[in-house]
Amino acid sequence: MRKISESTVRRLSLYLRFLEQFAAHGQTTISSAELARRGGTTSAQVRKDLSFFGSFGKRGLGYSVTELAAKIRDILGLRRTYRVILVGAGRIGGALVQYPGFRQRGFHVTAIYDKDPHKVGSRWNGLVVRDVRHIEADLAKEPTDIAIVVTPAEAAQDVVDRLVHSGVKAILNFAPVQLAVPADVVVKSVNMALELETLSFSLSNR
Amino acid sequence: MRKISESTVRRLSLYLRFLEQFAAHGQTTISSAELARRGGTTSAQVRKDLSFFGSFGKRGLGYSVTELAAKIRDILGLRRTYRVILVGAGRIGGALVQYPGFRQRGFHVTAIYDKDPHKVGSRWNGLVVRDVRHIEADLAKEPTDIAIVVTPAEAAQDVVDRLVHSGVKAILNFAPVQLAVPADVVVKSVNMALELETLSFSLSNR
Repeated sequence: MRKISESTVRRLSLYLRFLEQFAAHGQTTISSAELARRGGTTSAQVRKDLSFFGSFGKRGLGYSVTELAAKIRDILGLRRTYRVILVGAGRIGGALVQYPGFRQRGFHVTAIYDKDPHKVGSRWNGLVVRDVRHIEADLAKEPTDIAIVVTPAEAAQDVVDRLVHSGVKAILNFAPVQLAVPADVVVKSVNMALELETLSFSLSNR
Repeated sequence: MRKISESTVRRLSLYLRFLEQFAAHGQTTISSAELARRGGTTSAQVRKDLSFFGSFGKRGLGYSVTELAAKIRDILGLRRTYRVILVGAGRIGGALVQYPGFRQRGFHVTAIYDKDPHKVGSRWNGLVVRDVRHIEADLAKEPTDIAIVVTPAEAAQDVVDRLVHSGVKAILNFAPVQLAVPADVVVKSVNMALELETLSFSLSNR
């Protein structure tokens, strides 16, 4: 398979959302033009993105909604479920653990950790918050696919080192810090304040 | 000024965080190597990023922490405060409105809107949730710099059209939908499930 860029992966995720909405409304086929319009891109871009899967749209008929959705799910690795642990039981963590989009997509939060004794033992969305010192032992028994790190900045690298040492290969990071990980571990960082700063930059430099 | 790419803007935001941490610890100068190490990049990249401001580091002495922080705040438009409104009083909205990083950076949430009559009138972080139908009238009286949209996907474009019509020029979008806006409006989209999908893609294609 050719290398697929992150921007292509992100567009495929978006197309999948649209396809699911179309399917829910009983639509069976869709043109690249319609996907492009919904995705804020061009028909040529849509056709290029989908060409990674080989040729299967029918000229003049467009794509089968269910077939295309299944192919995108396949390429995004969404034919299976993923175990997700959350480290950091704060406000953002609270919103994330209850985020319905995760479970719908097959991302199941199976454990929550915190180091605050006032939070450890409390119940969050059906899970009991565990002491962060149990991470290694827990992951040795029950590995996770993905860890979401929502700790303060100064704690994040230490937590990530322990996750990596325990075999975690994919991390979604909300701490406002650049994390160092080995080459075989993938990290995605989301920083709310930083997103706002790209906006303030745009507003100041127009 | 030369055009600054979004990835440069994001690194500048990160450097600013590190500089503030260094300043808090009483450090007065910093080398490009130290910034690079913290930022997970190279000294050459740091020097290139900072060269946008002209030359002001002293060879062998590094950069003045406070001077560099002030210059980055300047370029990011952080010498002033920004009015931010939030549309959608759900769980993610709740986490965002209480996010301490926003106010520290000068982003002040001044109003929250929802269309759910059960939420309208309730108090959130010191603000009373207002009916979304007041957006135009409110913004006519008191314009906002930035709007954060945390509505369901199907409501987002309509809300954004109304925000744009009311003069909003910068939008942070959490709804899982691609938004259409005029060329003079900047939109940043954050989609939690999509971030996880780039991870599942990486895990499935390693």
